[in-house]
Amino acid sequence: MSSQHTSISPLTTFLIAAFFLLSLFPATFVSVLWAPYNSLASYYIPVAAPRSTVLCSSPNICTIPPTMSWFQKQFTLPSRSRGSYLITDTILKELPEIKNYKTGLLNLFIQHTSCALSLNENWDEDVRADMSTALDRIVPEDKKGQGLYRHDAEGSDDMPAHVKSALIGASVTIPITNGRLNTGTWQGIWYLEFRDMKHSRKIVATIQGEKN
Amino acid sequence: MSSQHTSISPLTTFLIAAFFLLSLFPATFVSVLWAPYNSLASYYIPVAAPRSTVLCSSPNICTIPPTMSWFQKQFTLPSRSRGSYLITDTILKELPEIKNYKTGLLNLFIQHTSCALSLNENWDEDVRADMSTALDRIVPEDKKGQGLYRHDAEGSDDMPAHVKSALIGASVTIPITNGRLNTGTWQGIWYLEFRDMKHSRKIVATIQGEKN
Amino acid sequence: MSSQHTSISPLTTFLIAAFFLLSLFPATFVSVLWAPYNSLASYYIPVAAPRSTVLCSSPNICTIPPTMSWFQKQFTLPSRSRGSYLITDTILKELPEIKNYKTGLLNLFIQHTSCALSLNENWDEDVRADMSTALDRIVPEDKKGQGLYRHDAEGSDDMPAHVKSALIGASVTIPITNGRLNTGTWQGIWYLEFRDMKHSRKIVATIQGEKN
Repeated sequence: MSSQHTSISPLTTFLIAAFFLLSLFPATFVSVLWAPYNSLASYYIPVAAPRSTVLCSSPNICTIPPTMSWFQKQFTLPSRSRGSYLITDTILKELPEIKNYKTGLLNLFIQHTSCALSLNENWDEDVRADMSTALDRIVPEDKKGQGLYRHDAEGSDDMPAHVKSALIGASVTIPITNGRLNTGTWQGIWYLEFRDMKHSRKIVATIQGEKN
Repeated sequence: MSSQHTSISPLTTFLIAAFFLLSLFPATFVSVLWAPYNSLASYYIPVAAPRSTVLCSSPNICTIPPTMSWFQKQFTLPSRSRGSYLITDTILKELPEIKNYKTGLLNLFIQHTSCALSLNENWDEDVRADMSTALDRIVPEDKKGQGLYRHDAEGSDDMPAHVKSALIGASVTIPITNGRLNTGTWQGIWYLEFRDMKHSRKIVATIQGEKN
Repeated sequence: MSSQHTSISPLTTFLIAAFFLLSLFPATFVSVLWAPYNSLASYYIPVAAPRSTVLCSSPNICTIPPTMSWFQKQFTLPSRSRGSYLITDTILKELPEIKNYKTGLLNLFIQHTSCALSLNENWDEDVRADMSTALDRIVPEDKKGQGLYRHDAEGSDDMPAHVKSALIGASVTIPITNGRLNTGTWQGIWYLEFRDMKHSRKIVATIQGEKN
């Protein structure tokens, strides 16, 4: 038996084995096995899409762009009647997720048309009282029945509330930097309620940015 | 001939073949062939960049963050003269892409300085008429020639239009949730035209967010 | 010696070698070596996460979504006393990064509560003078001591400045299209200072979008 087998040398056996194995997986051989040698200096591989690249330190350890992230939450503000309210603490308590964002923006959107959100002085409560009365002078109610407003079925405070809402606005956008709202020293988030009766106002908070 | 070959045993032949094959591709051996064994429990592979990770269930099946997307479109609003107009339907018709976004924001930006965009009551047209007249009282025209404004070459409605534009604002930002604008029940998108004559106003709409 | 070895044929040696090699790396065999054959027509590989896909033209050349990017910078505006100022050029000079964004948004946020940012007419300086005096009429100072404001310790210009700040707003959001701010022909970026004395105001600029 020996004499039959020995007509193929062990070296030949080895070479056949090697090429047989590799020939089983030619695409693998080219794309996977050979890949590490394609650009040993750098694995910065240009990709098919025009503006996209993947930085790989080896074929399966790739750098992707920093994690972009969106977060959205709806919540209700404590019920309030007419006045200006500092709600920075309420917002921060509702949105601990802010701390996860290195660079980003917080959008607060109030889903109503007779109140508003703003940024203003965060220290002296007189500023908030003055704001409410100043807005009352700018957009007066029709107390004397002069026919200032057609839309008056819901009370004399209603139409002025809509005008104030248009003037101040339904949303604020605040930069986030290193996990904190990047407001100035004296800036606080204000909720301005323009209706006399207590209202529960709903907010949609949208956080977007680059995560830590 | 047999006696020459048999000085190398088949086991030796095999080991030489194996190590020769592997030695051909040492980097592959380490980075590719061995990779699946590095963390069989999880393929959460930390990458070179500080904040980036790729979650792989096998070396070439990797999880990337949810698809972030930007969409931008410019269009012209139907031509209007002075007044307040509800344009929610126009906006939704121009932007069917909103439905593709799970979480996002729509920014509408009007490229003019004597009109404005706002969010306000979407039901009673009296509110829109009242808004226009209320703004006229807040920013009166100089009908009696009192010298209220230096900039009057374009008509008495022009400078008050610029002031109203500054008060109301050139853009609104509205949250998108599950493919819909997440506005309140009574909120509509308003276009306020402050010039007497008909104007065709251009809007830049920017949608950004996480796609469905 | 020969007769002992030749009991294992070279073919058997080869098969043992091949399967021994492959059995060393079964996971590799399945996931790596075989991967190129899974879908030769397309390497569009669905990934574990619900909404994520990676398009690969080979196992390590993958398409990722267009590069999303955030950029944030803080800077101080030239010091100004009461008035309306066109700051478009200042902003563009501070933010050459705008040109890197194909589609995006610029948010400018002023970290103070007695000044404001706005978009308005960029040509006639009379518009800026008229704006300041018009806002003075809308939110008058208490020159006659009528008790209009409780918060008056910092001067008669202070509380009106807070009200104007609420009316105009602390931030503007401007679309970016093909590396440029997509403002209208007559739109410029305004900084409105409401305090009499010169103030140095800090701005947080946040750019986000899809890069070129």
